[in-house]
Amino acid sequence: MANEQYRIRTLPVGTGATGKRIETDSMGAIEVPAEHYWGAQTQRSLHHFAIGEDRMPTAVYRAFGRVKEAAAVVNAKHGLLDPLLAEAIVVAAGEVVSGDLDAEFPLSVWQTGSGTQTNMNVNEVIANRANQLLGGGIGTKAPVHPNDHVNLSQSSNDSFPTAMHLATLLALRDRTLPQLDALTEAIRFKAEQWVDVVKIGRTHLQDATPLTVGQEWSGWAAQLRDARVRLEDSLASVCGLAAGGTAVGTGINAPEDFGEAIAAKLAELTGLPLVTAPNKFAAQASLDGMVAVSAGLRGVAVALMKVANDMRWLASGPRAGLAELRLPANEPGSSIMPGKVNPTQQEATLMVCLQVIGEDSIVAAAGAQGHFELNTMRPVVIANVLHSARILGDAAEKLKDFSVEGTQLDRAKIGEHVDRSLMLVTALSPHIGYDKATEIAHKADEEGSTLREAALALGVSAADFDRIVDPTTMVGNPRKDLGLE
Amino acid sequence: MANEQYRIRTLPVGTGATGKRIETDSMGAIEVPAEHYWGAQTQRSLHHFAIGEDRMPTAVYRAFGRVKEAAAVVNAKHGLLDPLLAEAIVVAAGEVVSGDLDAEFPLSVWQTGSGTQTNMNVNEVIANRANQLLGGGIGTKAPVHPNDHVNLSQSSNDSFPTAMHLATLLALRDRTLPQLDALTEAIRFKAEQWVDVVKIGRTHLQDATPLTVGQEWSGWAAQLRDARVRLEDSLASVCGLAAGGTAVGTGINAPEDFGEAIAAKLAELTGLPLVTAPNKFAAQASLDGMVAVSAGLRGVAVALMKVANDMRWLASGPRAGLAELRLPANEPGSSIMPGKVNPTQQEATLMVCLQVIGEDSIVAAAGAQGHFELNTMRPVVIANVLHSARILGDAAEKLKDFSVEGTQLDRAKIGEHVDRSLMLVTALSPHIGYDKATEIAHKADEEGSTLREAALALGVSAADFDRIVDPTTMVGNPRKDLGLE
Amino acid sequence: MANEQYRIRTLPVGTGATGKRIETDSMGAIEVPAEHYWGAQTQRSLHHFAIGEDRMPTAVYRAFGRVKEAAAVVNAKHGLLDPLLAEAIVVAAGEVVSGDLDAEFPLSVWQTGSGTQTNMNVNEVIANRANQLLGGGIGTKAPVHPNDHVNLSQSSNDSFPTAMHLATLLALRDRTLPQLDALTEAIRFKAEQWVDVVKIGRTHLQDATPLTVGQEWSGWAAQLRDARVRLEDSLASVCGLAAGGTAVGTGINAPEDFGEAIAAKLAELTGLPLVTAPNKFAAQASLDGMVAVSAGLRGVAVALMKVANDMRWLASGPRAGLAELRLPANEPGSSIMPGKVNPTQQEATLMVCLQVIGEDSIVAAAGAQGHFELNTMRPVVIANVLHSARILGDAAEKLKDFSVEGTQLDRAKIGEHVDRSLMLVTALSPHIGYDKATEIAHKADEEGSTLREAALALGVSAADFDRIVDPTTMVGNPRKDLGLE
Amino acid sequence: MANEQYRIRTLPVGTGATGKRIETDSMGAIEVPAEHYWGAQTQRSLHHFAIGEDRMPTAVYRAFGRVKEAAAVVNAKHGLLDPLLAEAIVVAAGEVVSGDLDAEFPLSVWQTGSGTQTNMNVNEVIANRANQLLGGGIGTKAPVHPNDHVNLSQSSNDSFPTAMHLATLLALRDRTLPQLDALTEAIRFKAEQWVDVVKIGRTHLQDATPLTVGQEWSGWAAQLRDARVRLEDSLASVCGLAAGGTAVGTGINAPEDFGEAIAAKLAELTGLPLVTAPNKFAAQASLDGMVAVSAGLRGVAVALMKVANDMRWLASGPRAGLAELRLPANEPGSSIMPGKVNPTQQEATLMVCLQVIGEDSIVAAAGAQGHFELNTMRPVVIANVLHSARILGDAAEKLKDFSVEGTQLDRAKIGEHVDRSLMLVTALSPHIGYDKATEIAHKADEEGSTLREAALALGVSAADFDRIVDPTTMVGNPRKDLGLE
Repeated sequence: MANEQYRIRTLPVGTGATGKRIETDSMGAIEVPAEHYWGAQTQRSLHHFAIGEDRMPTAVYRAFGRVKEAAAVVNAKHGLLDPLLAEAIVVAAGEVVSGDLDAEFPLSVWQTGSGTQTNMNVNEVIANRANQLLGGGIGTKAPVHPNDHVNLSQSSNDSFPTAMHLATLLALRDRTLPQLDALTEAIRFKAEQWVDVVKIGRTHLQDATPLTVGQEWSGWAAQLRDARVRLEDSLASVCGLAAGGTAVGTGINAPEDFGEAIAAKLAELTGLPLVTAPNKFAAQASLDGMVAVSAGLRGVAVALMKVANDMRWLASGPRAGLAELRLPANEPGSSIMPGKVNPTQQEATLMVCLQVIGEDSIVAAAGAQGHFELNTMRPVVIANVLHSARILGDAAEKLKDFSVEGTQLDRAKIGEHVDRSLMLVTALSPHIGYDKATEIAHKADEEGSTLREAALALGVSAADFDRIVDPTTMVGNPRKDLGLE
Repeated sequence: MANEQYRIRTLPVGTGATGKRIETDSMGAIEVPAEHYWGAQTQRSLHHFAIGEDRMPTAVYRAFGRVKEAAAVVNAKHGLLDPLLAEAIVVAAGEVVSGDLDAEFPLSVWQTGSGTQTNMNVNEVIANRANQLLGGGIGTKAPVHPNDHVNLSQSSNDSFPTAMHLATLLALRDRTLPQLDALTEAIRFKAEQWVDVVKIGRTHLQDATPLTVGQEWSGWAAQLRDARVRLEDSLASVCGLAAGGTAVGTGINAPEDFGEAIAAKLAELTGLPLVTAPNKFAAQASLDGMVAVSAGLRGVAVALMKVANDMRWLASGPRAGLAELRLPANEPGSSIMPGKVNPTQQEATLMVCLQVIGEDSIVAAAGAQGHFELNTMRPVVIANVLHSARILGDAAEKLKDFSVEGTQLDRAKIGEHVDRSLMLVTALSPHIGYDKATEIAHKADEEGSTLREAALALGVSAADFDRIVDPTTMVGNPRKDLGLE
Repeated sequence: MANEQYRIRTLPVGTGATGKRIETDSMGAIEVPAEHYWGAQTQRSLHHFAIGEDRMPTAVYRAFGRVKEAAAVVNAKHGLLDPLLAEAIVVAAGEVVSGDLDAEFPLSVWQTGSGTQTNMNVNEVIANRANQLLGGGIGTKAPVHPNDHVNLSQSSNDSFPTAMHLATLLALRDRTLPQLDALTEAIRFKAEQWVDVVKIGRTHLQDATPLTVGQEWSGWAAQLRDARVRLEDSLASVCGLAAGGTAVGTGINAPEDFGEAIAAKLAELTGLPLVTAPNKFAAQASLDGMVAVSAGLRGVAVALMKVANDMRWLASGPRAGLAELRLPANEPGSSIMPGKVNPTQQEATLMVCLQVIGEDSIVAAAGAQGHFELNTMRPVVIANVLHSARILGDAAEKLKDFSVEGTQLDRAKIGEHVDRSLMLVTALSPHIGYDKATEIAHKADEEGSTLREAALALGVSAADFDRIVDPTTMVGNPRKDLGLE
Repeated sequence: MANEQYRIRTLPVGTGATGKRIETDSMGAIEVPAEHYWGAQTQRSLHHFAIGEDRMPTAVYRAFGRVKEAAAVVNAKHGLLDPLLAEAIVVAAGEVVSGDLDAEFPLSVWQTGSGTQTNMNVNEVIANRANQLLGGGIGTKAPVHPNDHVNLSQSSNDSFPTAMHLATLLALRDRTLPQLDALTEAIRFKAEQWVDVVKIGRTHLQDATPLTVGQEWSGWAAQLRDARVRLEDSLASVCGLAAGGTAVGTGINAPEDFGEAIAAKLAELTGLPLVTAPNKFAAQASLDGMVAVSAGLRGVAVALMKVANDMRWLASGPRAGLAELRLPANEPGSSIMPGKVNPTQQEATLMVCLQVIGEDSIVAAAGAQGHFELNTMRPVVIANVLHSARILGDAAEKLKDFSVEGTQLDRAKIGEHVDRSLMLVTALSPHIGYDKATEIAHKADEEGSTLREAALALGVSAADFDRIVDPTTMVGNPRKDLGLE
């Protein structure tokens, strides 16, 4: 066979050329920069889609490398691909996975809606690199052809969604989820530390009955933990892979069990619980799984906004705010007001959360725009999901490192707030009735007196008052709430 | 002519019948409730679109009445419509405008995307009512035919958008804008009242340099006034009417200058600055003007959220919050905590604002879904815009009536916040430099001392301090800011 | 005890009074309509919150009836509530659950953000009705007091969220999910019916390789089924109940195990898998569970938009569109164009989907607005979630009844599209290579020839062409895809 | 004076140093890379806000350069700033404006919500560069101090909003608006070219009465032109500048007429119609003007989605779609289907539009998050607005260059669609009535006959039919619609 002339060499990454090279595709010939491995279709896309500066995320390409590697192995096993070509493809794909070829993927997010140009970019780079490794010429498409070999048994319509799912799962598993865990754990740790510090509760922003600082922080930790669990659960929606469906879901030009085989191979390569999608028509025509993951990210952002807002409000002051927390002062807060300290980590976090919530709305809108056998809003979806995952996780990490861990209590202020509260009257309610208790609270408020003064004036005995109105008995069982007993 | 047998009678609204009546359309015969004027197409729509409980807003029908009235007048003037039939249509349409026939319009928002069923509902009711007035039989389509006469020179595709624009303009002009004006004026009045009350400023929720209560409230008034101006300006986007374009914008089956004539007639009837849309293809295929008005409503909601939030935060307390404002206590705040008072008007306002912002996103999404010669997402758009306008205006009115007008200052608290502030140090900065001023602020914060103590300890003379650090001179010129001098 | 004078009578619902009655609360006395059971706080809310026409959904009150019933039982069991009063509360609460008292709940969605006014509305109505049943006077608060008895061991802050979760679970279980199931099943049935009908595939709206009608419809069914599963899974997020946390999550004024006991009772009463929320601070301060359910509803809307869009596009025509499907003609489509038939069910469905997606964005925004121990954006959230659930389910039902079930194929048109397609060339690719196959397709396109003509002209043998280019072999195994073998 | 030792030298940009340098701020000393001009606060921000990869846009810094230049000039004119220092600041600021110092601005979007860190980055870079030019040492803050001189009479709270407005106005004026104009003009040109080509109209995706291709394209041009006008009008909302308000809007530490003077200077420098904001409290506490501009961008995206969708649907096919348009084939469409051509420019445009619509929702949400004297969601707003403006304009440009200009008609297909249409029956309606016309259309549809056959069979004379049913007379006056006569 024709391939006998070839063998795989060990060569560092790099074409070793400068200037221009001619590459061809079905539209004809086109010049590409000789220093790069990409081919004609990549070059055309660069020209036609010079829109803004958003690049298709690197993570997509690294995931695509896995897809091409797995496809080559399965194709070879089926006897569809010469083992030598398969091996060369596997080597080149491995360099894509490792990031060694990151510079070869310059395309815009704003391209064809199927991601075909990114798929062809990968096919072209792997083909040229493989041909280089085999001793064939870069740009000759021989012995490895980008379509006939690297893309064998695949279409962009099944391989791009497959790469999207892989990239999403890896980003979440390896980065975002651990970052969220660390923040949650840091908050939980503080909750435990302050489990018994009684503070004023607030509902409607107004003074309410007391709770402990630890209970309040345990609520934050619970919100984040629950949102994180929902996010992780959502990943099940993208464990099914489109690979094997090829052009429209029927699997044309792929062997019958290709979907099962490549999913198994990818699971082996990544350690992810991947399976072949049970219905390829849905897998290719929709983005519903990605929409579900995006909702999971949004859920974390929604919870995190509440937490970050609480932190900055509780730290408001120092003299004319709530001032119960003292956040670390990481930097001067103002260019004009000397000595100002601001809740900057919380602000950055809040902006990130707004961005994530907004990007989720883009993902949902794009998810609803599928037609017939394909949803062609794929690049905008993967770009937003990976972006959201990245900034959400990073913000959580910085919030933890630079604010949560260094936060301290102003115990004097906290105590003062509890002592002055009128809502301690609530404890009297079961004893004297809601209406009578209301009368006491109103009286104290109007006269600016203490609750005790008002209660005694309205007939509650001092002994009863002192026995019943004890903040430390109003907080229930904080240690049990935190699972400490 | 056949119409000689007819004359217009004076008859109260009401069919005077019970049970069922047979009506027909091109699909055949169908039973309708005899007590109602509507016909076959309305009845079919009721059956096929029994989705939820959202009814097409009454305001759409009242506006539609104007459209039918104007069309009849113009058609008669062109000699296309028998004057007697025109007169009967005008009378019946007038009853639609006045609301006397409100009960005849039962259709769901969730119907055909062109609003054809609502247009036919109007055509059927007017035809039947006109026939009753003329002495013809209800359900006979004679002498007045819903399509051939009431809908003459019109299509749903141009008359429904025309009614949408009318309904929007009238709702805004007659209700929402005045409601917003009243709130803005109430806030401006308070600003004037408190123009000289010095208070602590807050940026990043942290204490900042002082301003007056009047300046702060003037900012709220300015935000609302500017947002209101933008909303009013947006109405220009819906003063162009599609009427005259008929089926696809070409004006088929309408006289050539029908668009100009009906716009002029509608302007006369309503006092609105209506014109015929310069490009009917855009007018019918898009909802861009409605999207612009929706953005105007959203702009008010965005501004109002800021104002309502500020109010409730400044009123937080009474003992453990900022407590600078005292909002009216309109109702008991809690079912369990006696004497609690909550910022309920602000909360209702905030929820309304969130709703308006979300409904605006629906309008924009619907606006992007047009195809070819028609955007068939019209009912969802008009329903949301009218709903948003209504709740936004009403919320502003209640906020004004039940909270803003009764709000009072806690001057003691306000004064205390200013006196204790460290940010008064800013005034020293031009005299001693930013770095030195920072040192003073930090010292006071760390030691819990007053700013004066820290300044003197670090070498500022008492005379300099007392001269420079005077809150009343740090607020600039509040009276000028409020246009009072 | 004082209650000895009372016993429960059997009395039809109705106060039997007209005119006005005086009711009191901690703000003083106020007139209420004597024909109604509601009390002072309801009346005040009606006055202060006359914003638009949106009422708190009936489903919230019916769920609240269950909460009050369960609370009375548990309170009595703990010896906190006289058994007779408990029994009267249970009877009255039962009438709330059954809907007999629906007319007693007139409050606006736009009220206090905790839902306190709705909670008090329920407390007042149940107290007055219970007092009537017991022989006490309506408006006397004796023997049953709205706060001290009906609201015993509860706060709005835990009971309103509990009612929200109940109402959501019941609406989804009893109505929306079955409606979605029926639509999915109708689509799956059609898929099976047409499993072998070969049609052209379309990607990027452009002709692609063939698949069968059954495969295409199976994709729709799979999308809807998967989205439905995600929606159902999301319900786990609202099975944890806040009840027991009372004012701020600590459980003040409630017995220690009240949360567990009331959750168990509610589970028994409803058949729902309810548990007490593991962290009450999170349960009351957040709306994260509701945000998750809302995302589940959105997921269905996103999938359904794709399905409805495909249907209307495939039915486009009749003469100048794709025209592969014939949808039932339920009504005349146009007021001006005779004989026009439009995809109105699909349009209504699409508008509903846009509404649901937009309402979900409101829920998420509201969910992010919690502060400290309470999220006070509750009414806007429950109103939108219940509304979305309702219109989404109803739209699915109507789409099924009036469009899907009556849809037919235009087999002639479908066959014609396959026969003329150039993309059948894809099957040649593995035999002659991608580049050569491209050449054939381009030639046929440019010359307007058939694919066969072009292939033969470029050297493919007629025998090879006829053997390889057979649409029926390009669709894979449709029966297997549908699980039919 | 101390400054006598200094004079301004001509020096190329560059510190000429490597390794590390010590910089200080009020938090103490910190190492910065010696090759850079930035100082301590920039370095701290880099460390604390290593969140994702989003950088504050270069356009913000270039606009900031203008602000610092104008401030220095005005400060010098007021005698607040030594003329030599002012001159040095002007020179350094000019290098910021020109982009020569772009590499000195590395900060993340996700930073303090006031943009203080970006303001200080600018202050530090200008101070160090000015000190270098003056012969002072980099990092010495002498003779030019970043706060006391570069930031003189300013706060981040007024200068960052000022830079936001400038950057927005310049981006829109210089790039986005011209790009949109060019697309609109290209479409208008095509409309004119095809003014008389009669084609089938489509409403509800179903065949409707005819119009010309020119009329259809004129609708697209009108939508884009109107949306563009609204966008340009929205810019008035950001022509008012906060500069002069300093810390909280009162103008503390700035001369009284600083706002007017700097606005006038900036107007002179940029040619923009800038004025000082009439109410500084609103200007600093809100982002309402930016929200309005964002709505303007959204308006264009909404219109453009409709246009791009129409184009790709009209080009669908080639054999099994509408196929009325032939878009340029810029690249191979598929990795598996040879010869496939896809509407890729339209897809990229649609994704960009979805992104812009989503980013607008972020801007609105951020705009609603202001508190008291400052909205601290500024970076996320400016980043999204500038991003949206950029990708929207670029997408419009590419759509024009690579699709609109090369689009051609398939006149045979267009003619065939008109000839076969049943909706031509509409023209008969005024002559024979709607009901009779409906009967004809139904008969033709059911029998698959031509409209003429059905009409004649139902009693319309051939002469009448041929006279009345003439598509060319049904399109009204296309030349007048396009303003050609």
